[in-house]
Amino acid sequence: MIRVGIIGRGYTATETVRWLGRHPEARAAVFMARVDAPEPAHLQFPSLPRVAGGGGPMVEPVDVGALAGRVDAVILSLPHTTSQQFAPALIDAGIKVIDLSADFRFDSVPSFEKTYGVTHLAPELNARIPYSLPELFGGDIAGAPGLACPGCYPTATLLALAPVVSAADGFNLDHIVVDAMSGASGAGRKLEIPYLFCELNESVSAYGVGKHRHRPEIEEKLTRLAGRDIRITFTPHLMPMERGILATVTVPLTADTDTASVRRRYEEFYAGRPFVRVLGEGETCRTASVADSNFCDLQVTVDDHSRVLIIQSAIDNLGKGAVTQGIQAMNLLFGLPETRGLLPDPG
Amino acid sequence: MIRVGIIGRGYTATETVRWLGRHPEARAAVFMARVDAPEPAHLQFPSLPRVAGGGGPMVEPVDVGALAGRVDAVILSLPHTTSQQFAPALIDAGIKVIDLSADFRFDSVPSFEKTYGVTHLAPELNARIPYSLPELFGGDIAGAPGLACPGCYPTATLLALAPVVSAADGFNLDHIVVDAMSGASGAGRKLEIPYLFCELNESVSAYGVGKHRHRPEIEEKLTRLAGRDIRITFTPHLMPMERGILATVTVPLTADTDTASVRRRYEEFYAGRPFVRVLGEGETCRTASVADSNFCDLQVTVDDHSRVLIIQSAIDNLGKGAVTQGIQAMNLLFGLPETRGLLPDPG
Amino acid sequence: MIRVGIIGRGYTATETVRWLGRHPEARAAVFMARVDAPEPAHLQFPSLPRVAGGGGPMVEPVDVGALAGRVDAVILSLPHTTSQQFAPALIDAGIKVIDLSADFRFDSVPSFEKTYGVTHLAPELNARIPYSLPELFGGDIAGAPGLACPGCYPTATLLALAPVVSAADGFNLDHIVVDAMSGASGAGRKLEIPYLFCELNESVSAYGVGKHRHRPEIEEKLTRLAGRDIRITFTPHLMPMERGILATVTVPLTADTDTASVRRRYEEFYAGRPFVRVLGEGETCRTASVADSNFCDLQVTVDDHSRVLIIQSAIDNLGKGAVTQGIQAMNLLFGLPETRGLLPDPG
Amino acid sequence: MIRVGIIGRGYTATETVRWLGRHPEARAAVFMARVDAPEPAHLQFPSLPRVAGGGGPMVEPVDVGALAGRVDAVILSLPHTTSQQFAPALIDAGIKVIDLSADFRFDSVPSFEKTYGVTHLAPELNARIPYSLPELFGGDIAGAPGLACPGCYPTATLLALAPVVSAADGFNLDHIVVDAMSGASGAGRKLEIPYLFCELNESVSAYGVGKHRHRPEIEEKLTRLAGRDIRITFTPHLMPMERGILATVTVPLTADTDTASVRRRYEEFYAGRPFVRVLGEGETCRTASVADSNFCDLQVTVDDHSRVLIIQSAIDNLGKGAVTQGIQAMNLLFGLPETRGLLPDPG
Repeated sequence: MIRVGIIGRGYTATETVRWLGRHPEARAAVFMARVDAPEPAHLQFPSLPRVAGGGGPMVEPVDVGALAGRVDAVILSLPHTTSQQFAPALIDAGIKVIDLSADFRFDSVPSFEKTYGVTHLAPELNARIPYSLPELFGGDIAGAPGLACPGCYPTATLLALAPVVSAADGFNLDHIVVDAMSGASGAGRKLEIPYLFCELNESVSAYGVGKHRHRPEIEEKLTRLAGRDIRITFTPHLMPMERGILATVTVPLTADTDTASVRRRYEEFYAGRPFVRVLGEGETCRTASVADSNFCDLQVTVDDHSRVLIIQSAIDNLGKGAVTQGIQAMNLLFGLPETRGLLPDPG
Repeated sequence: MIRVGIIGRGYTATETVRWLGRHPEARAAVFMARVDAPEPAHLQFPSLPRVAGGGGPMVEPVDVGALAGRVDAVILSLPHTTSQQFAPALIDAGIKVIDLSADFRFDSVPSFEKTYGVTHLAPELNARIPYSLPELFGGDIAGAPGLACPGCYPTATLLALAPVVSAADGFNLDHIVVDAMSGASGAGRKLEIPYLFCELNESVSAYGVGKHRHRPEIEEKLTRLAGRDIRITFTPHLMPMERGILATVTVPLTADTDTASVRRRYEEFYAGRPFVRVLGEGETCRTASVADSNFCDLQVTVDDHSRVLIIQSAIDNLGKGAVTQGIQAMNLLFGLPETRGLLPDPG
Repeated sequence: MIRVGIIGRGYTATETVRWLGRHPEARAAVFMARVDAPEPAHLQFPSLPRVAGGGGPMVEPVDVGALAGRVDAVILSLPHTTSQQFAPALIDAGIKVIDLSADFRFDSVPSFEKTYGVTHLAPELNARIPYSLPELFGGDIAGAPGLACPGCYPTATLLALAPVVSAADGFNLDHIVVDAMSGASGAGRKLEIPYLFCELNESVSAYGVGKHRHRPEIEEKLTRLAGRDIRITFTPHLMPMERGILATVTVPLTADTDTASVRRRYEEFYAGRPFVRVLGEGETCRTASVADSNFCDLQVTVDDHSRVLIIQSAIDNLGKGAVTQGIQAMNLLFGLPETRGLLPDPG
Repeated sequence: MIRVGIIGRGYTATETVRWLGRHPEARAAVFMARVDAPEPAHLQFPSLPRVAGGGGPMVEPVDVGALAGRVDAVILSLPHTTSQQFAPALIDAGIKVIDLSADFRFDSVPSFEKTYGVTHLAPELNARIPYSLPELFGGDIAGAPGLACPGCYPTATLLALAPVVSAADGFNLDHIVVDAMSGASGAGRKLEIPYLFCELNESVSAYGVGKHRHRPEIEEKLTRLAGRDIRITFTPHLMPMERGILATVTVPLTADTDTASVRRRYEEFYAGRPFVRVLGEGETCRTASVADSNFCDLQVTVDDHSRVLIIQSAIDNLGKGAVTQGIQAMNLLFGLPETRGLLPDPG
């Protein structure tokens, strides 16, 4: 039984506690967050039962030193630039770190620093913490002291584009357009006007146009997959829903092909990857189908008229875009099947 | 490992498949529904992985005879009056039946027949199938050939009122008012105008005023708990949300009391029942906190001004109001802890 | 043409600007709000066109003195206890005041002070400002220097109960239960956790149980209508929607009656009142039907089984519950038909 | 006073009745729809008051012959291919036709027939009915016997792209990508599974990928504006909201420019057009800001990194995308200012 510490109490921490409650070989062992004094954990995490007489688990103030001997791994559900403060000491203490923030996602520390506008606090550690998107970069994971879980938009976009950018030819990689739509939980429990119910209800809007922080992360990894410099147009949209991301990706074609051929390519590319589901002809790619799961659903359409490939990619931003991706990472770090606690074991 | 057959493909069947995927001692073994020919199960149930090459599980046309030897239990996710057609043969074949419909919920067959406007097809079996609300009527369950899971409104209302109607005095049981609010999934995947997004969005309305089918079910059980005839006013409301029920229950007081005393009574009444959470002072009872769970949250307030007790009761209509209630029932039928697959085992 | 000043920039101010844009005999002439320097009004109020070159109307910092000669009336869209600061000077300047806040709603100043926890700043003026629910208290309005518009919950509740509490007999007025459900705009643009999209989505909850500020307002007016002291149980609920209130009101019966008789009573009571629509048999009372209007829809059902009358009352909380109620009041103050700018003139 | 007949009873008819109720020089004079016998109009159109004693307006069975002498114009809120059946007789009777369907939108009858899979019933009339997007094709309108109102997606897309495709250079018109997101009312009151609340809630999906009927309409008009053949990639998305369309349009740049220059171009292009609002720097283009209006909001961003222009275009699909567009058209047909009944007259 892997003993897991959770640091944080936002939406991803809440989901982590919920998912660990279903994991047969891991359990939430310690809860820490920015609290002044210990508080009953059930007040913070609604998936927990109440324990009569106050004897239940507590959320403790964050104290990395107090974790030694009590946990085997820590899932960091913290704001960007905060994980860096805790990760080195945890790793020194022999605790595996699964980081849901952006702090260790970039291969290039300067890119990270430019994108997030800060100085990286643990640049030497950065090189030892692989980017944990096992379907694309799985080879790095085993034996790592910790893992950096990809952002939600990068997960959806990279899984959509990997079979394209790694192809020898047939696609024009200079005019890739990604229009991505996200539920509001992607922003966390942020007290700002645009996230109020009455502002978001019945409203969709683009944000961060031309300057969203996830574009450099996506481009760094696409460049790695393609073996050449890739730039994309990336426009995220805030939607009147709680969770889910749909990315619609358009890639001009440079050779004749058809939908069936492209679908076959995707099926082969993701053969043996249970969490990526390439949809069949006529199936609709929708966020509701991947809610509360670690799945990424992909649908492909060749549009002969304008000569482009259109890809839809759907994930749960709190699932494959964050928490279940983290549990998949944890499974791999501890030598378990990647599906453990996420999918039923094959009967 | 309990092998479970699921008959149906509506919202409760979908949820059942999802929950069984997390159960350590049960698995979805056979899927049956009104289909003309076998269909890949992953097209019906989005929580299932896809199996390459079409070798995955199929949804088969309903054929009770074909279940023998393949399942230990069947969860019936069928419209009211349909379960009666299948239950007798299943029980004769030694298969445990967990029925999510209304067909076996009534102690009184004439009440059922009057309420649902049909002739009961298996009245003799009705007496052998207990009403499975373990927190209130647990004694009946062990050894039963099958179980009738309560309706969603009855679950929320009965758990709210049981400590009141079973009290020796202090409450006026002649003016109980229940105003209950439900997400639209309670109606199933029904193709009717009021359930369209554009009709339900930004709209709340009462329905079935004075004549909802769940009132006779509630009153029969309240009468059993109270040992005297109980009539209530019950008004259900359709809400612009997918899942969740909140019942607000008002009971006039006949003696002086205060909120703390009533809360203590509720805590004692539900001591040792992990799925009923009596909220503490200042905590808000909200459907979101019980979503995707088998919990029922209860909050009590004594209103000195109008001299009433006001109770809020929240459940997930697809959880404690249907599917997880069914899994809790299944656990008990098979001698497992009631929390197995629903809550983490105590560490 | 009535020149109207709008003070405020919350949801009710935004709606006021929108409705005035459609009024044939009134126009928004001055905009004032808590701004440091004048700002283009179209940035605040999305119903306004943009004027090229910056020549359009501005939102000015609040300065009551600067209104003289520029407006005939002011609609105060301000937080409770703020309107009191401005109303006396406006009235002294001969400007008619339509107040959407609670500041002048109570006949009893001590009740107001107890309910809102403040000292009333203009108690002598309070007696001169009638409560503007024209369907019930219309006689007071003509010639008044200003009007206090009722709260949203009181509007829905009072219109539902007036035909009952003013009846000679047949109803037990000691066990009236009001369960009311409101969209989130009723709380204004409040930056608090419960009003975030991700918190409110898929969630319903009661709030202010046993202590909501609108109960004393409702009871004071019911007492006036009934000619005897009335106490009610009033439980408001926050719903996952933006606008609309549905109140479900339950009143025990003390004499035999039926739905048709009660409906007739309601129709007669509201004869000649175009904004109150008593629904016919089988019609559903829903908030969507009154959205963006000054209507209050009422449906009545006699429940023989539990011997109660159940009333549904639906309004738009930003319409009849606030802004259009205010415009109806303004029409009456200026001697216009109450429907002007709210309903088409009869052809 | 223009006497208007409304044929239909779907969402656009409902909105038409609501908007006509606010128009100072037009009124809903006759209602017709597919009913078996006359029905009170207030049952169909919730914006109408009820008239006591049943003396109010009725919805009559459709009978074009019965309109002569009773109306000056008819607004056709009918399914595609139905308007063609009625328009010729109406025009022969001297009644102006404003058609909200697709039936007369195409310059090319063969294109229409290919796109909608039918034979056009009134091809000779088609040439006499201009496409009514006054901001782009206004010259055609005066004196026409009827007008074809553009589709909702075409309106948003054409207004976004007109300043680009009519530019002499600077833009690569061969890789235009339009990802558009629509509320569900765009589909009408359609009883199909994807439009159920529980299916659409928390779900976004693309539909009609590569083959939506609005693409040929958009391309025909873009080609007309550009003076050269234009093909676009157009992917519509169904969103969990009721009304509103946001189109995000990406156009590669072929020359150096910046956001300010492009914004200036848009402002000049739409100077004097009150319904098109070019947003200033830092303003967010969102559907909520144009709800219940005839506005189209446009925001432009030059993305230096990927060298594209990104345009957001927001309309209310039931406003500028249908009903208010129709009223704007009607105003022009009758020689009124285009803003009459849609915006307040300038003070």
